[in-house]
Amino acid sequence: MLQTKFPSQSETVMTEMVLPNDTNNLGNLMGGNLLHWMDICSAMAAGKHANTIAVTAAVDNVSFQHPIARGAIVTLRSRVTRAFNTSMEVYIEVFSETMASQEKLLTNTAYYTFVALGENGLPCPVPAIEPETEEDRRRFEGALRRRELRLVLSGRLKPSDTPALQALFKVD
Amino acid sequence: MLQTKFPSQSETVMTEMVLPNDTNNLGNLMGGNLLHWMDICSAMAAGKHANTIAVTAAVDNVSFQHPIARGAIVTLRSRVTRAFNTSMEVYIEVFSETMASQEKLLTNTAYYTFVALGENGLPCPVPAIEPETEEDRRRFEGALRRRELRLVLSGRLKPSDTPALQALFKVD
Amino acid sequence: MLQTKFPSQSETVMTEMVLPNDTNNLGNLMGGNLLHWMDICSAMAAGKHANTIAVTAAVDNVSFQHPIARGAIVTLRSRVTRAFNTSMEVYIEVFSETMASQEKLLTNTAYYTFVALGENGLPCPVPAIEPETEEDRRRFEGALRRRELRLVLSGRLKPSDTPALQALFKVD
Amino acid sequence: MLQTKFPSQSETVMTEMVLPNDTNNLGNLMGGNLLHWMDICSAMAAGKHANTIAVTAAVDNVSFQHPIARGAIVTLRSRVTRAFNTSMEVYIEVFSETMASQEKLLTNTAYYTFVALGENGLPCPVPAIEPETEEDRRRFEGALRRRELRLVLSGRLKPSDTPALQALFKVD
Amino acid sequence: MLQTKFPSQSETVMTEMVLPNDTNNLGNLMGGNLLHWMDICSAMAAGKHANTIAVTAAVDNVSFQHPIARGAIVTLRSRVTRAFNTSMEVYIEVFSETMASQEKLLTNTAYYTFVALGENGLPCPVPAIEPETEEDRRRFEGALRRRELRLVLSGRLKPSDTPALQALFKVD
Amino acid sequence: MLQTKFPSQSETVMTEMVLPNDTNNLGNLMGGNLLHWMDICSAMAAGKHANTIAVTAAVDNVSFQHPIARGAIVTLRSRVTRAFNTSMEVYIEVFSETMASQEKLLTNTAYYTFVALGENGLPCPVPAIEPETEEDRRRFEGALRRRELRLVLSGRLKPSDTPALQALFKVD
Repeated sequence: MLQTKFPSQSETVMTEMVLPNDTNNLGNLMGGNLLHWMDICSAMAAGKHANTIAVTAAVDNVSFQHPIARGAIVTLRSRVTRAFNTSMEVYIEVFSETMASQEKLLTNTAYYTFVALGENGLPCPVPAIEPETEEDRRRFEGALRRRELRLVLSGRLKPSDTPALQALFKVD
Repeated sequence: MLQTKFPSQSETVMTEMVLPNDTNNLGNLMGGNLLHWMDICSAMAAGKHANTIAVTAAVDNVSFQHPIARGAIVTLRSRVTRAFNTSMEVYIEVFSETMASQEKLLTNTAYYTFVALGENGLPCPVPAIEPETEEDRRRFEGALRRRELRLVLSGRLKPSDTPALQALFKVD
Repeated sequence: MLQTKFPSQSETVMTEMVLPNDTNNLGNLMGGNLLHWMDICSAMAAGKHANTIAVTAAVDNVSFQHPIARGAIVTLRSRVTRAFNTSMEVYIEVFSETMASQEKLLTNTAYYTFVALGENGLPCPVPAIEPETEEDRRRFEGALRRRELRLVLSGRLKPSDTPALQALFKVD
Repeated sequence: MLQTKFPSQSETVMTEMVLPNDTNNLGNLMGGNLLHWMDICSAMAAGKHANTIAVTAAVDNVSFQHPIARGAIVTLRSRVTRAFNTSMEVYIEVFSETMASQEKLLTNTAYYTFVALGENGLPCPVPAIEPETEEDRRRFEGALRRRELRLVLSGRLKPSDTPALQALFKVD
Repeated sequence: MLQTKFPSQSETVMTEMVLPNDTNNLGNLMGGNLLHWMDICSAMAAGKHANTIAVTAAVDNVSFQHPIARGAIVTLRSRVTRAFNTSMEVYIEVFSETMASQEKLLTNTAYYTFVALGENGLPCPVPAIEPETEEDRRRFEGALRRRELRLVLSGRLKPSDTPALQALFKVD
Repeated sequence: MLQTKFPSQSETVMTEMVLPNDTNNLGNLMGGNLLHWMDICSAMAAGKHANTIAVTAAVDNVSFQHPIARGAIVTLRSRVTRAFNTSMEVYIEVFSETMASQEKLLTNTAYYTFVALGENGLPCPVPAIEPETEEDRRRFEGALRRRELRLVLSGRLKPSDTPALQALFKVD
């Protein structure tokens, strides 16, 4: 049996500078470029947790709160929140700052799901997660609910079979 | 008041060939590259509907069902499903085929949300959507539920204020 | 013997958005980028017709009629016009439109020639073309003349052995 | 009146190494990448001749004689062959060699036509060409014929108004 | 007068995954790609220290100790070692690890020098550095010697005017 | 024994045009892009000299004397200065010019060191260099000194074992 790991063991930090070709016609970072960077940053977190290559299985709840201007420094920080047999959920936060101000602004958050693949190219088991911090624990709990949601939305689970979601959306 | 538009008026088709640098170490298209292409394809659909530039506001329910091998032809097809004042939800489907087989396989689907920006860079109203086909209508209806979900997940709406979701997850 | 195919069976549509790095110092799409996109778009048409990989053998008569500005949506549409044993001529049209206007302007046309390669890397036979529309038929006829021209220009045919061209340029 | 220039004054040499992403699925340089490099190399020759920015107006007679393998060194050599008021024809040759052999093989030739643009973005006159070498002279003469051909093919000239072509394709 | 800063205040961490196009024909990361990443990573450290844009003035002593294979995770870590009026020396370390082993191997080190530019595009003063750790102090001391060396090598200082270097290379 | 070669036999010329994505936020060529181009240009010189693939081992004394603006034509010229068993030092010069002025300005110089690798991936011997011109001879002599310096700076040689450097920095 694989040894349990902490979320901090998979933490991955990526820093990028917004260059001209990363921008749209308003001079801000294009959403698609950021989605690409988030994918790489979270794939590395998943790979560190699984000790093998991990491929993207789902992307959810990516929100874009503030535009990021050309020239800004973008910091991405990802860590595995929970593991489910052969898959892992990764939480990722994106901050932007300018050279002049250097105040980090939280601009994006997202959840990416990865599947670990063994040398034969088939899904392989990954270590379980043992949350450490209060926030780790909160994300660990929420992961169940987000997983039910993913399965409902992809048609692989009936809404009536989702106790965690039913508890959330119940009418009082 | 802006004239209503049909989803078909914003339909955008993009075809790409999977080149070496688009692949991961298993020789398949990387998730991040596909997310980037989907963003561009759906941004063009949103821009056509709004007749102005549109920036990514949210990405949800991206699922990756099958790996896409190097050399494959990838077809992306996007159309606006519903408009909400200044924002639009875009549905996007991704198909892959090989030169030899030419059977199109549905490999990914996703919902992207965009905000239309006027010349002053501020959100501006977009035309409403009038669904035509049966499928358009189904996606138009579901858009309400997905929007409630996005607002709950980003903390801007309480789970108790989501009639569409409560109806879905109610315990009988 | 390979079954005859229609030009419409190879039709390939590609949509691109002109991003900052695609532009020259006047803020318009660089010719070289467009040539690259046209090559990919027509290679996919040739590959669909031949059901195997096809490599560029010649490019002719590419004309650039209007500049395409940064931010524009570019639509490329290609289809095989005629097949000659192991090679195929592909006709490609390029249209540009802006988000605001959405009037499609024909900006470029070109003929690309491809050779189909089999699994051993050698040229392999491709299906013949059966033109359907009036325009298909006109392009099918002209293909002979353009082929004579390519062979004369590359020194593989003497000008005196080109009946189709002689008919075109004859002095009355 | 602008001073006449020699073709050698615009000669531009570009050397590139074929990297993984420049290749197709056979491991050879993709036609589209080479077209892009040829455009840049000949745009620099045209710019040097015109002393101002030059944009691509036409591409003709690009032939691909040999595949160029990944890892090869590609040398492009361009020079202006003739100038016509505001436009210039550029001839470009492409050679490939491997690190091991270092025998240069002529793999491609092409003619690109450029229009010089002044500061106001409108076409501006360019110096005339005075051919020096025997080869320069031959290309200078042929440029008239190729120009007639371009104008016929783009529908701006009737085949009956092309003395140089009529002489070439006359029936004895 | 600008307030002194610690090296740790400019520390910048960048993580990259080696993708196919980053590699040479041996399947290892190309030196040129790594030089590019190091430039971006150290430019961000310099920009954070100077609170303004910083441009590369010199690169020295870049050593490549081990090849980095495709698929590896590359971590770059940079911090300002010393400031000289308008310029800054940045030290940068590069580590590589594989998904499977996750042992970080020091593969490269380098010194990059940057000049801070103000809003008028001219060099502007930057804060002095106050070293904290033992290693910071050692790099701070060595910076003088490396600066003398840069000035000698670029011909702006005579070897006879370099007390720090003379002390180092003196014959006993 | 391998036959001696002249520096001119490895000379490699590369011409690039500064495109939008190559620039920083001041509209000038980014240092990192130039370092990348210099690496490719000098790797080709080393490969031509060694007749086999060569990988970067060290980069030294890169100086950036003038900013290079977007739209400029950049010419890189590299040649092997001296060979040491399995390694080679390459000198590289960078010139920039604008379309309008066409005066070449020397903007950068650098020394790159490469190691030749044989088919087994291990270092293999390379031909010795026989300098021809006065400048070749000066660079050939200096190469010994620069090599001592690289070995001292990477800790593989003691400052007391560097006769060439001691002669340079001796106190009179």
